[in-house]
Amino acid sequence: MTVTIDPATVAQRFREEIRAQLQAAREPLHLVGILAGDHAPSLTYALYAQRACSELGIGFELRRYPRLGAENAIRSANADAEVHGIIVYYPIFGTEQDVYLRELVDPGKDIEGLHSKWARHLYENRRFVDADKTRKAILPCTPLAIVKLVEAAGFFHKTGRPLEGRTVTVFNRSEVVGRPLASMLAHDGANVYSFDVDGPLHFQPPPQHEPDAAHSLAETEITRAEALAASDIVITGVPSKSFELVRAAELRPGALCINFSTYKNFSDDVVSEGKAACFIPRVGPMTVLMVIRNALRLQQQNAG
Amino acid sequence: MTVTIDPATVAQRFREEIRAQLQAAREPLHLVGILAGDHAPSLTYALYAQRACSELGIGFELRRYPRLGAENAIRSANADAEVHGIIVYYPIFGTEQDVYLRELVDPGKDIEGLHSKWARHLYENRRFVDADKTRKAILPCTPLAIVKLVEAAGFFHKTGRPLEGRTVTVFNRSEVVGRPLASMLAHDGANVYSFDVDGPLHFQPPPQHEPDAAHSLAETEITRAEALAASDIVITGVPSKSFELVRAAELRPGALCINFSTYKNFSDDVVSEGKAACFIPRVGPMTVLMVIRNALRLQQQNAG
Repeated sequence: MTVTIDPATVAQRFREEIRAQLQAAREPLHLVGILAGDHAPSLTYALYAQRACSELGIGFELRRYPRLGAENAIRSANADAEVHGIIVYYPIFGTEQDVYLRELVDPGKDIEGLHSKWARHLYENRRFVDADKTRKAILPCTPLAIVKLVEAAGFFHKTGRPLEGRTVTVFNRSEVVGRPLASMLAHDGANVYSFDVDGPLHFQPPPQHEPDAAHSLAETEITRAEALAASDIVITGVPSKSFELVRAAELRPGALCINFSTYKNFSDDVVSEGKAACFIPRVGPMTVLMVIRNALRLQQQNAG
Repeated sequence: MTVTIDPATVAQRFREEIRAQLQAAREPLHLVGILAGDHAPSLTYALYAQRACSELGIGFELRRYPRLGAENAIRSANADAEVHGIIVYYPIFGTEQDVYLRELVDPGKDIEGLHSKWARHLYENRRFVDADKTRKAILPCTPLAIVKLVEAAGFFHKTGRPLEGRTVTVFNRSEVVGRPLASMLAHDGANVYSFDVDGPLHFQPPPQHEPDAAHSLAETEITRAEALAASDIVITGVPSKSFELVRAAELRPGALCINFSTYKNFSDDVVSEGKAACFIPRVGPMTVLMVIRNALRLQQQNAG
């Protein structure tokens, strides 16, 4: 039988942890969401984050601007000592100008973990900001949410590297989710086949005796069928109706299936045939908690 | 009569300046070109840069890799004290991963001026890196080449802000050329109408009494016809055959026309009707000199 896991249930546990940390914090968290332009789903995401914060007693101030106001809005939130964390809702321009805005956010307030400073930490497997290893680097919120869901689904080893020997297929290699996710999974010991329209890449874990090295990356000729048949975990994030849904027949028995896109990426038979062990149909409720978790971490580190 | 200006002729003057600077330099310049993947035009550009460097007695080492080698190639060129400047030839992945690579280049070796550190200096009109104003910020090479060509064409005022009161239309708002160019022209005093598929934006110069402030930016309803009829300078960079060529009838008499794309963007009648004052059909020969000029600047600053 395939168990469908509701990420909101997993999120509940993290919510309790965060509540305890909030009580210990010396200053209430104050987050700012910057909503510019008129991309309708962004408002939905922003209100969702606002509600999640409100439930935890966290201040989340949603600031709205025309698209040309975003740049100065980021600068003033960067400069404002009262603001602990910034979420910018993209797309704003829908061009590479959005990347300029993303890089403009102070990494010390980038609670989504999207700045290239954090990307470099991640890809180079440098888990701490300082030589004394007291301040942890920030991880991007959606990949982090997915890794926590893999753990919650029981796919982590209790000792050693948590995904040692596991094979994972990820459909999506965006800079925001798919590529950082593949890298994180490889650093945890997995062999990851990463597919996008450009074909597959193989993210290889660092050698077991060098767990602090970075993953390596190789071209591969592996087919979708071969990768899926070999995979303990299959993660999809393809925002397209033309994606060929992953079917039960393609899976390895006992696989964990996770979809982080808002499109259907798995065929219904993945649950109905009972071949997969678990199916997690969405990750959103975990993502917002990871943003708050990052915010707490940055608040502590910036204060210390 | 419309004068067609060959940018190679203008470049000749800069070449002599650079030759003199090279003789005064304490150490020979050593530049590295990183060519990864199989985008054919990149090899052409790289060989062109190599020839331009060779004519000036500058070492330009072209390093070739498969696409997955680019990341470590950048890291090792960053770490190598013998390397004064790095040029990375894009596209490599042709996705946002290329932006990650661009940000990975040490800004102190980014002789093309593409890193977000330099973009922030430019957009905020901070022309120096240090408070004592001894070390100038690096400007992106193609926009800089275009501004130098505007000057060479005689469109700069001799006193005050060089483009005070001028109106400019730019077709292209990419992060690599069109947007930084519009910002630079506005900081020099021009009103700039920037067009792309997304419509026009108006880059407004800082007030005359605050020349160190940043340009401002406004939405505008101006049409292409209105902008062209008002413009002293028209600059195009549209890499598409479907772009409606700019015709003589659309121009203000005496305009300066510059095309920086490799596609034809101006109708032949712009030259044959004699309405424009000058036409500059390409900028490439100037761009490569601006890269070398940036390299010299960074070498001096990093040594000092």
